[in-house]
Order: sequence, then C-alpha cells, then structure tokens
Amino acid sequence: MGVREIGLPEVTRSPEPGVPERVTIWEVGPRDGLQNESDVVPSETKLEFLNRLNAAGLPVIETTSFVHPEWVPQLADAAEVLDGLSRKPGVRYPVLVPNERGLHRALQAGVEDVAIFASATDSFARRNLNRRVEEQFEMFHPVVRRAVSAGLRVRGYLSMVFGDPWEGPVAVDQVVNAGRRLLEMGCDQLSLGDTIGVATPGQVETVLRAFVAAGVSVDRLAVHFHDTYGQALANTYAALRQGVSTVDASAGGLGGCPYAASATGNLATEDLVWMLDGLGIKHGVDLKMLVDTSTWMAERLGKPSPSAVVRALAL
Amino acid sequence: MGVREIGLPEVTRSPEPGVPERVTIWEVGPRDGLQNESDVVPSETKLEFLNRLNAAGLPVIETTSFVHPEWVPQLADAAEVLDGLSRKPGVRYPVLVPNERGLHRALQAGVEDVAIFASATDSFARRNLNRRVEEQFEMFHPVVRRAVSAGLRVRGYLSMVFGDPWEGPVAVDQVVNAGRRLLEMGCDQLSLGDTIGVATPGQVETVLRAFVAAGVSVDRLAVHFHDTYGQALANTYAALRQGVSTVDASAGGLGGCPYAASATGNLATEDLVWMLDGLGIKHGVDLKMLVDTSTWMAERLGKPSPSAVVRALAL
Repeated sequence: MGVREIGLPEVTRSPEPGVPERVTIWEVGPRDGLQNESDVVPSETKLEFLNRLNAAGLPVIETTSFVHPEWVPQLADAAEVLDGLSRKPGVRYPVLVPNERGLHRALQAGVEDVAIFASATDSFARRNLNRRVEEQFEMFHPVVRRAVSAGLRVRGYLSMVFGDPWEGPVAVDQVVNAGRRLLEMGCDQLSLGDTIGVATPGQVETVLRAFVAAGVSVDRLAVHFHDTYGQALANTYAALRQGVSTVDASAGGLGGCPYAASATGNLATEDLVWMLDGLGIKHGVDLKMLVDTSTWMAERLGKPSPSAVVRALAL
Repeated sequence: MGVREIGLPEVTRSPEPGVPERVTIWEVGPRDGLQNESDVVPSETKLEFLNRLNAAGLPVIETTSFVHPEWVPQLADAAEVLDGLSRKPGVRYPVLVPNERGLHRALQAGVEDVAIFASATDSFARRNLNRRVEEQFEMFHPVVRRAVSAGLRVRGYLSMVFGDPWEGPVAVDQVVNAGRRLLEMGCDQLSLGDTIGVATPGQVETVLRAFVAAGVSVDRLAVHFHDTYGQALANTYAALRQGVSTVDASAGGLGGCPYAASATGNLATEDLVWMLDGLGIKHGVDLKMLVDTSTWMAERLGKPSPSAVVRALAL
C-alpha cells in the first residue's frame, strides 16, 4: 500500500489570520505554458487539453494568444482553437491580445475576456514590445478602452515585478505605479508576475502591502509565480496570507522560462491544488482528473512533467 | 546576459512578525540523502563531499549512520568515513545511531553528536524498528541516557509527523506526546519529519503551536520536510513564521523517499538557501560553492539534481 492511496493531504486550516476561504485558479497552461514549450502542439491536441481542463473543473482557462504567428508560432492557430472550443457555462476563457490588431482578431472570434501583457521594467518592455514602460501604456490604452467599451473584461499582466534579468532588483514604487496605470486604464485585475522566478516571500508580502497602501484592493490582485528557483509555492502561500485569492498556475507546470536556463517554468497547478486542499481552501478542481490530464499532455510532449504532484501521483 | 548573472535574489525581510534573524541549516545529505540513493557511493567520494560541504560553510553536517550494514549498505563505511573526516572547528558532525550497539560504535569513533530516529506512528515504528511507538521509547531510553552521560548531544528525529502511508492522518496529540517523550528522555532537539512529504502549511503551523502550547520551546524544534508533493519550501516558510530556527535540508535534494513513488526526496539545501538569502536570514552558507558541490555529486551519481536552484544556476 503506497502513498498514492492516501490520495489527498490532511485538511488543516491555517490558524494564522488572512488566508482566504476560496481561491480562483487562473489556469495558464494552454497559453503561457504551450507558448513557452519548444514543440508546436497540434490544434486537436490543444482542444482535447482544453476539454480535459474543463472536465477537471478549472474556473478560468487562458486559452490562447492573438500575438503575431511569427513571434509565437506555437499559438498561430488561436482562431481555430477558439472556434473548436467547447465552452462550459460559468467558465471564463481569456485570450492574450498584444495590441489593437490582436484585440480585433479576438473580437472577431467572439471572446469575452482578454489580457494584455505589460512590463514593470524598461529593459523587458524594450525587448518584448520595443517600447519603454511609459510608451507601452500609450500602446495599451486604446486596446483596453476599446475592449472595455465592447463589454469585455480585461486582465493586466505586469511582468518582471520581482526582478529583471537585465536590471536586477526592481523598485517597489516603480511596480506599484505601473500596476496602478493598468488598473486605472480599465483593467479589472492585475496579475503580478515573477517572470524569472527569483522572488522570495518577504518580497511578495512587501509588494502586496505596497499596492494595498496605495489604495488598490487585494481582490483586484492576482499572483503569477515561476518555479525557476523552487520558490513559487512558498511565495503563493505568502500571497494567500496577504489575502490574495486569484492564483495563476499551469497544468503539469507546462512552459519553461524563456529567460532562464532552468527546466522549470510556471507553478504547477497540481502542486498548488495540493496546498489549497491541505489548507481547506475551496477551488473546485478535481486533482486526479488534472493529474491525468497533465500525464496525458506530458506523453504528447514526450517529456516528464516537472510537477512534483504529477510525478508522485501518476501511476 | 542571463539570470545566472544576477546570482542572488533581492533581499527583502518579511514585514510579517516572527521570522528569525538567523537559521541553522542542518545538512542531512551525507546521511539521509546517501542512505536513500540506490547507488553505493565510494568512501573517498563521501569524504570529498564532506570536505566540500565544510568549505561551503554548513554549520551542522549529519555525517553517517551506525545502522546495521545489512539494512543500509550505503552507509556500511561509517567508521571509515568518520576516521577520514576533516573536522572544522565549530562545525557539528552528528551521526545517526539506531540502538545501543550503534551508540557503542559511535562512541568508539569519537563522535560528539548523535541522533536517534523514532516514529510518531505504530505502523512505521513496526516496519522500521519492529516495535510499537511505546516500545521504541523503551529501546531509546538507555541509548539517550548513556549518550548524555558520555557528554554527547542527542537529537531526536520524529518521523511520520504529518501523515503516514499506512495510517493516513496522524493526530496532533499523538505527535506532541511522542515528541515530548524524546525531549524528556534527554534529546536536546526534536526534528519533526514529514517523511512522506504530504504536509501543507496550516498543518505545520498547527503542530508547532501545539508543541509550544504543551510547554516546548520553539528553540528546541527543527523541521524536516520532503518535497514529494512540492510543499517543502512553503512548509519551511510557515515554520519560520512560527519562530523555528533549525531547518533540515539535503545538498542538491539528495535522497529519494523510500515510501513514495516520486523522484523527489529531501528539501534541497540550495532552494532553502535561496529563500533564506531573499529573506535576509543569516545562515553562513556559500550558495555558489554549494551548487558546485551538488553539481559535482550529481555527476558522481549519474543523474541530475532535483534542486531547482542547482538546475538554474549550474553552468
């Protein structure tokens, strides 16, 4: 009789204050995960992946991106995937749009949720968007305005929040100012990204407190951690303790980090679910179905999942 | 220019109360790590490993075990390793002793620190020691008494504290009672082990608070987490927040878990150091030298280190 027969961790609510009773898992595997895998996954495989994530109960599934196919060939089939997607009532299927042209394609495809991807640092804004931080807001402003007036919800990603590979540390004021600009522009949620995975829990607490001190409700904040240095779940726990209730994660830990040499990318949804289950935090996701899905996808990609839970539970 | 040139995370003390200013890293790689690797490492390699850990600044290095060579052939050379060990002033080199015979051999080898390994559950006590929980104390009592009267420091490991593969959840009272028995017997420190890696942070907080409520000073408690389900560092952070200042870890994450199917075992010392560095917690360990050591040992074992930090930083 092995560990796998225990199935789930013991439920013990934290006796410490602050931890929310329910968390929304924002599944980024189909978009952020597959975008950063070197293989191009066939559209039918993506659709089966999305169907499986639906069946596993994920409440938000970031589906694809309308970035130019030359930049991200992995997601060149965005329109086709959205056309074939079986939407489940109550589930949100946001799509990344890099600019007005991307938004136009997203609107044509009938999406109701979009996300834009901004940088907290000039270095990354230049490399990713060929613009400075200030200039990216000029680019995003008409995109967000048009999306909001079309009735869409817009999420703002802010990347390099906890460190930048070219600049090193990033000033908290700079992060809060950039994040507030995205919210004031019309984004209803801000996802704070540790794009290179360097953050530690004290930094997470400090940044979240600075946002709250600047008048931003913690309900509008999400966290997006990468596990490059093994810190993603410790940082997530620190964020939960600050009241954050939306956490980004990628099924099976799909997606490497393009700016780090490590094999590990996004926080694995399964590792997050294990912790939430143990903490008695509701999330609505079926861990076994999710592990099955990630095991299946790992076979498609021909390499093992970096998720500890997937490795431990997969038979 | 890559992440590796940043070298270290940004230092940000946690604004939350409770986190200690200094942590003692109790390195278990040479004992707990190598004991659970399937390969038997040559004594000369072990001695070079110990020398490298010394050079990297580890303050406590659990060196080997005087368990019967038939049970753990990986550590059959305990006396030889201790004979060849270059002791560094101020560093402790504890050795595991399973029983009186083991203690006798340890005393002959001139050790000053020993550790005993007890179970919080009957199921594991039976399988590991062929005794019930109550009977193991009868076995350990003369060992601890004799060690203490010989002037040795004795650490008590308590295993299966957060879950047992045969029994499932373990009652907190049962854990506290077993732990107190070890301390009252003469152990100066108690290491609380999540032997199968199932714990989550709320459970860690609850168990630690229960010990403190029962009159045990948090200074006498250490934590020993396995990363089987990816939870080790989040649990460590929860323990630091409760004031724990001794943390067990294994260089490079050496050592699988013999009772789980997963590839991952002990918390990797490097991943712990990254978090402590980011939190501004002193520990005295040189991360680069440690990564070099684990990279070197991974080559000896012919398989990559499971440590995220080792994978990300190794050139």
